[in-house]
Amino acid sequence: MEAYLERWRDAGPPLNLISITELNRNSAQVLLELAAEMKRGTKQGREFYRFDRPIAAAMIFEKPSLRTRVTFEIGLYQMGGHAVYLTQNDIQMGRREAVMDVARNLGRWAEFVVARVYLHSILEELAIHTGAPIINALSDVEHPCQALADLLTIRERKGTSALKLAWVGDGNNVCHSFALLGAMLGHEVVIATPKGFAPDAKFVGDQVALTNDPAEAARDADVVYTDVWVSMGFETEREIRMRAFKDFQVNSRLLSLAKPDAIVLHCLPAHRDEEITSEAMDGPQSAIWDQAENRLHAQKALMALIPIPPENAPPRPS
Amino acid sequence: MEAYLERWRDAGPPLNLISITELNRNSAQVLLELAAEMKRGTKQGREFYRFDRPIAAAMIFEKPSLRTRVTFEIGLYQMGGHAVYLTQNDIQMGRREAVMDVARNLGRWAEFVVARVYLHSILEELAIHTGAPIINALSDVEHPCQALADLLTIRERKGTSALKLAWVGDGNNVCHSFALLGAMLGHEVVIATPKGFAPDAKFVGDQVALTNDPAEAARDADVVYTDVWVSMGFETEREIRMRAFKDFQVNSRLLSLAKPDAIVLHCLPAHRDEEITSEAMDGPQSAIWDQAENRLHAQKALMALIPIPPENAPPRPS
Amino acid sequence: MEAYLERWRDAGPPLNLISITELNRNSAQVLLELAAEMKRGTKQGREFYRFDRPIAAAMIFEKPSLRTRVTFEIGLYQMGGHAVYLTQNDIQMGRREAVMDVARNLGRWAEFVVARVYLHSILEELAIHTGAPIINALSDVEHPCQALADLLTIRERKGTSALKLAWVGDGNNVCHSFALLGAMLGHEVVIATPKGFAPDAKFVGDQVALTNDPAEAARDADVVYTDVWVSMGFETEREIRMRAFKDFQVNSRLLSLAKPDAIVLHCLPAHRDEEITSEAMDGPQSAIWDQAENRLHAQKALMALIPIPPENAPPRPS
Repeated sequence: MEAYLERWRDAGPPLNLISITELNRNSAQVLLELAAEMKRGTKQGREFYRFDRPIAAAMIFEKPSLRTRVTFEIGLYQMGGHAVYLTQNDIQMGRREAVMDVARNLGRWAEFVVARVYLHSILEELAIHTGAPIINALSDVEHPCQALADLLTIRERKGTSALKLAWVGDGNNVCHSFALLGAMLGHEVVIATPKGFAPDAKFVGDQVALTNDPAEAARDADVVYTDVWVSMGFETEREIRMRAFKDFQVNSRLLSLAKPDAIVLHCLPAHRDEEITSEAMDGPQSAIWDQAENRLHAQKALMALIPIPPENAPPRPS
Repeated sequence: MEAYLERWRDAGPPLNLISITELNRNSAQVLLELAAEMKRGTKQGREFYRFDRPIAAAMIFEKPSLRTRVTFEIGLYQMGGHAVYLTQNDIQMGRREAVMDVARNLGRWAEFVVARVYLHSILEELAIHTGAPIINALSDVEHPCQALADLLTIRERKGTSALKLAWVGDGNNVCHSFALLGAMLGHEVVIATPKGFAPDAKFVGDQVALTNDPAEAARDADVVYTDVWVSMGFETEREIRMRAFKDFQVNSRLLSLAKPDAIVLHCLPAHRDEEITSEAMDGPQSAIWDQAENRLHAQKALMALIPIPPENAPPRPS
Repeated sequence: MEAYLERWRDAGPPLNLISITELNRNSAQVLLELAAEMKRGTKQGREFYRFDRPIAAAMIFEKPSLRTRVTFEIGLYQMGGHAVYLTQNDIQMGRREAVMDVARNLGRWAEFVVARVYLHSILEELAIHTGAPIINALSDVEHPCQALADLLTIRERKGTSALKLAWVGDGNNVCHSFALLGAMLGHEVVIATPKGFAPDAKFVGDQVALTNDPAEAARDADVVYTDVWVSMGFETEREIRMRAFKDFQVNSRLLSLAKPDAIVLHCLPAHRDEEITSEAMDGPQSAIWDQAENRLHAQKALMALIPIPPENAPPRPS
């Protein structure tokens, strides 16, 4: 572990993981290598790394979650840590109590805070006031933990050479983080969305190509990635979106344009036979279940690396 | 522990515990003997068995629970494991995400899945796709963990000789599992229900006697067992049921027909002075609180025995 | 630890902590000294005390909670224990199942019960039937765990000499426990409330002074403590209360009457610029965040000291 920590410190590591932009190529690589190592350890029945003292995370979920919540909770447990699961109903952050006050409280008890929020700016506010690392568990702008699992999966299947990564569908939060991390690691990223649903350059950087033609993205791609057309919070736009996205389904026709050994990704939950066919999800090219599994390993590596305030630190200033 | 595991393997153990029918007389006996041993250990302040690596269970509850949830969570903790408690509100299985997809995800992170569901068929679907053992924590058809606690309690109080077990009341899911396990272990099982509320033979097997006369069931019985008349999900039938069941109350009059040292069981929660009098619940014949306690010990034995996929197994096929 | 336990036993310790009146000066002092010791240990990265066997707490919350829930859950985890978090939605105590039956069940599995309830009498009912220690996590009458954190904070900042403690605002449950413990430890306690909002003598004892003049309480005080004007459950009285309390705000004008080095306390959540100005909360006199942190350490000391039924005890009578 010490070797990973040294490389991590040399890379200029982040204090939080709110956005993929807090990483750089070096720190991202260390993190993915450690994740692969930790995965091997867990598969062999011996954890590669366990905390040497009690480490607790406060996990705030303003929206429901399966993958994020379960993988953080089990991941922490496997390393000897503990997650406290807090729903919006429990703490009513911003209503029962100011965000800054919730932050100051949590920073006194928990070693870090994992938060799924509607507004990205809430994460930034938590980071200012908590005094402990904040991990973005999904905001309206990014989903960096998902991107770590995505690139870990790609690395497992395709090694470390430069690839063509195609995103087909909505230019959403998951797209942002995937595009940023893909480009950061030297891949060609092409994002195909309907007009009006392209990601903003300020969220995906200037290293990615945008198109409105799914075929252009899929052609010769090594990876074809999609997500639901109607995400949590956009249910009212359902009809408009279903029409706009109808030619962006990931199916055998679109996959026939990609490399023969291309893999299919989806961050889940999926609406089967809407944005992706069951055939594509369950077929031989699907890496979707490995990708879901890798949430666990990528986040464990993140939690092992992110600098927890030293236990004998003076009381944090409030 | 090794001796129990060897006997368990010799008995032809189940891969899941969805129905009592997955057990046989030998495997059921091993399980109850281990539960008694584990209970002795816990009472003496030293756990008889602890997992030798991190073991996490995903616990899905589509309905509320006190006993099942607390005993699985504390039982796992006492053995060094960890339970992740997932409500329907958290994961919206079958609505936000297909059951088969939830199953495939959970199987990648958790060593087993405990599920309380409305529809028994959901458990079977989970078992097909999860790739990890599924434990039935109550369905519309069975409640096998309850039956294990019931028979453990009977064994503690009455030893292993053949007894007369009377079920008085609704021929429901709890009745099914109790009757199946009681008969499997060689007891005479008599089920008294109002007309129209008898259990279906396909759920209780053909080793049990059915009657509409509570006195016939209770006469010379060693055990008198009842459950609420209006279970979760049947509230709309309340009036009809209250009328149908009015002569099936477990009270001192009915108990006077049983053996003088007969014990009274109830799986709880009880509606006091409806299906059972407070006098019977709180009186000297009541084994109800031991029965509740035994949920913990029986489920610990089950979790210690059920074959968890080896940690170094190749990624499970999806 | 043994020295603390011996002093605790000599002091005539309580079996539960439902009310501060169950403590006496000696037991309260042992508890606060141990809390300070445990805090030092945690800050230095080595827990002063860990349970020598699995210790599980059932935590019942009829109302939402941030501080109480997180500090009990993390505190138990740091000592090697485990908390099972039960919402009213999960267990429906008193509706789905009689309080006495919930109590009897929990006492069979959990080493103690932490409960936040609307009605104080529920705690007393739990104590009669559970057979394991009951810890009050807030009732309509008292909040003893908060008072322990309050007095620990005062002790840290001001030592053990006799002080003037001013409560300004609503004579509520937090006020009751604070006044009782402050007086028990030899401090002068002055409570300033609007007419009609004074605490009842039966809840605060006869060692405290009551006034309707906030200046009289604040004058030369060492500690100025307030709480929200509209607590959980009193939302319908909001307008009346806002008018009644308008002259009871803790602000720089009121603080100028106190000793120059007086500290400001608030049990949180706060309604900023209602009962207390942001200036006072965030200023140099505020000890509010230490106070919140101390919930953790005070409750850990309580859980380390409170007599858990011996593991080899015979089954508790029901």
